[in-house]
Amino acid sequence: MKEINGGVCAPGGFFAGGIHCGIKKKSVKKDLALIYSRTNCSAAAVFTRNKARSATVDLTRKNIKDGKLRAIIANSGNANACTGQAGMQAAQRMAQLVSEALSVKESEVAVASTGVIGVPLPVNVIEEKIDALKSSLRDDGQGHSDALEAIMTTDTRKKEIAAEIEINGKTARIGAMIKGSGMIHPDMATMLCFITTDVAILPSVLDTCLRRAVNNSFNRMTVDGDTSTNDMVVIMANGEVGNQTITGESRDYDIFSSALEKICITLARMTARDGEGATKLVTVTVTGAVCEEKAVTLAKSAASSNLVKAACFGADANWGRVLCAMGYSGADFSPERTNVSYISRAGSLAICKNGESVPFSEEKAKSILSEEEIEILIDLQEGNEKASVWGCDLTYDYVKINGDYRS
Amino acid sequence: MKEINGGVCAPGGFFAGGIHCGIKKKSVKKDLALIYSRTNCSAAAVFTRNKARSATVDLTRKNIKDGKLRAIIANSGNANACTGQAGMQAAQRMAQLVSEALSVKESEVAVASTGVIGVPLPVNVIEEKIDALKSSLRDDGQGHSDALEAIMTTDTRKKEIAAEIEINGKTARIGAMIKGSGMIHPDMATMLCFITTDVAILPSVLDTCLRRAVNNSFNRMTVDGDTSTNDMVVIMANGEVGNQTITGESRDYDIFSSALEKICITLARMTARDGEGATKLVTVTVTGAVCEEKAVTLAKSAASSNLVKAACFGADANWGRVLCAMGYSGADFSPERTNVSYISRAGSLAICKNGESVPFSEEKAKSILSEEEIEILIDLQEGNEKASVWGCDLTYDYVKINGDYRS
Repeated sequence: MKEINGGVCAPGGFFAGGIHCGIKKKSVKKDLALIYSRTNCSAAAVFTRNKARSATVDLTRKNIKDGKLRAIIANSGNANACTGQAGMQAAQRMAQLVSEALSVKESEVAVASTGVIGVPLPVNVIEEKIDALKSSLRDDGQGHSDALEAIMTTDTRKKEIAAEIEINGKTARIGAMIKGSGMIHPDMATMLCFITTDVAILPSVLDTCLRRAVNNSFNRMTVDGDTSTNDMVVIMANGEVGNQTITGESRDYDIFSSALEKICITLARMTARDGEGATKLVTVTVTGAVCEEKAVTLAKSAASSNLVKAACFGADANWGRVLCAMGYSGADFSPERTNVSYISRAGSLAICKNGESVPFSEEKAKSILSEEEIEILIDLQEGNEKASVWGCDLTYDYVKINGDYRS
Repeated sequence: MKEINGGVCAPGGFFAGGIHCGIKKKSVKKDLALIYSRTNCSAAAVFTRNKARSATVDLTRKNIKDGKLRAIIANSGNANACTGQAGMQAAQRMAQLVSEALSVKESEVAVASTGVIGVPLPVNVIEEKIDALKSSLRDDGQGHSDALEAIMTTDTRKKEIAAEIEINGKTARIGAMIKGSGMIHPDMATMLCFITTDVAILPSVLDTCLRRAVNNSFNRMTVDGDTSTNDMVVIMANGEVGNQTITGESRDYDIFSSALEKICITLARMTARDGEGATKLVTVTVTGAVCEEKAVTLAKSAASSNLVKAACFGADANWGRVLCAMGYSGADFSPERTNVSYISRAGSLAICKNGESVPFSEEKAKSILSEEEIEILIDLQEGNEKASVWGCDLTYDYVKINGDYRS
């Protein structure tokens, strides 16, 4: 897998664009994005498990049932969640507008929204600007970049990736963009992630690959413990590279599936690092577990703890909070066998051995924890399984950003 | 039930005291407390469910098994958790010292600690000051006050209560103190709560009353989602008021049990209000539920959400976050039937009706949410059960306090 430029426009036959249509009233920031494939696609998606869902989640789930898509329309500035009947009508209208503009079926359009919850979506401003949106479509990095800008909310960085892989002697591509910053927690996060590829693959097989990749990436990141109303990850595969269609487990399947997972993990790490107010990416790795599921549960509990996160912000080697957070995770483990180390570019430091403190240099701990990427490495000494979860620190800016998000 | 002064020393025959012994090295604040009954007591306790437990939790659980106690020794500044074998030895030594000083059995002593996790407890400073601790015992408000000061960590307020109740024509008393500020979450909180009463009651019946009271109070409060390693609530009943011993359900039982619950709820509210960095007590009440358990789950999820808490700090009427947090609670409900209102001394405001926004005055919302005590009232419109959970807002100061707790 080789990283390249171009994002979702890197694979052949994909176009993207983004404009300001006026949903974000107080700024001229882009707020409406479109991604389009000129040929038919296999498609798959995963969605938030929140009971309070955006209408876009219900509509896109329905539209993707047959494993086919041609386009994705997404807006920022309004989540179209908790908006009742009118919310579903607005989502349907968005699909209809794209259907008419691009001559695709309504059921081939995925619709996504992100932003404030509970405010009716002014679908009229989308109607007025649908032609401008269509005109913004390009098949280059600019198109990708415009679309990405248009789905960003409190994100401070453009989070994107594209890569080349060799499938059956042909050079295929995968491209992806993600938005997500707050309301980020496993299963899933407040995030929209759109992935494109020119690999030929059956919808059902694509679905399997996507679920595996999401499980090992986005479902292992946390910013604030809040699972949003609107999350979705959508992948479209148009097969333009002309490989023999992937129909099940095979060498090509492995190459594709593993590349997709790597891409999702990279995006998950970027998203955690860009968590609202975050100054650090905090990776919590649990090793020596009897099963991976337990490792994930324990790592998530530590990475989600406000106290652990605040200590990371303060570069305070308060490892007791790590054990404490593991202790209330619900997963069984032996605190008295657990080892904890801190690791970063500045070095590594064993700080807890068999559940007890070991003498350490506060100065060294401070220097390790002051880095922008830190890892809390936990060894349960019980088995051979492991898992990492990606999170961030809890800062003044998180409170500031979320103390008055709507205004 | 009539509120009175005197805290744990209000009931007859109880003595309390507190001194600075040197566990808190950087200050002269009191850090060692003692509570003592001159006569035998029925006793009961509940403990943290955290897998990573302080040795004090294991020791006190063992000592209280026979339902008898005479004294409680508690220190602040060090949690004696994640301290291995030496931790248990230190806890045992604390019990032994009290046993010798007060001529009670070691098994009649409850031991509690609170403070930083993972640092060996310097039990020698307790040994040196055990006589001074004994000398500090008084049966008045001063004794209570000194003991309470000695268990406080980041608490900013003295949280205490005492009340009189009429039992069988006699005036009995209940007194209580609590510490707890951060690492506060249901089941239970980072909290130590000590309760005394001069009512005569069987240990098993006292246990039932205590569990009911804790379930409806401390298990319904949250500050930061972290359940601590050290929590305990201990109650001692010495029977000095001379009522006919309460041996099971009866009118006296009801009076006592209901007073104990009221006391615990008052302390829970005080604790949430004194949450680390908190500027507000936030009560989340769910009504119209088919069962109380569901109401508790939904209310806890909303009260625990960092996003809801940050919005309360900013007096931002972001009700969508409330529905969102309920949506990922795991409890089934219909977002499209849910009503949400904000209530405080400044008035009340319906803000979401049947899952959708209703027009409201931002100015009025701001004024309601700017009060020091606010309530988020949620009506599921499904049944007749309800429950309240007590939490607080998430502020800059929470981050500040916890960014560098150890130093």
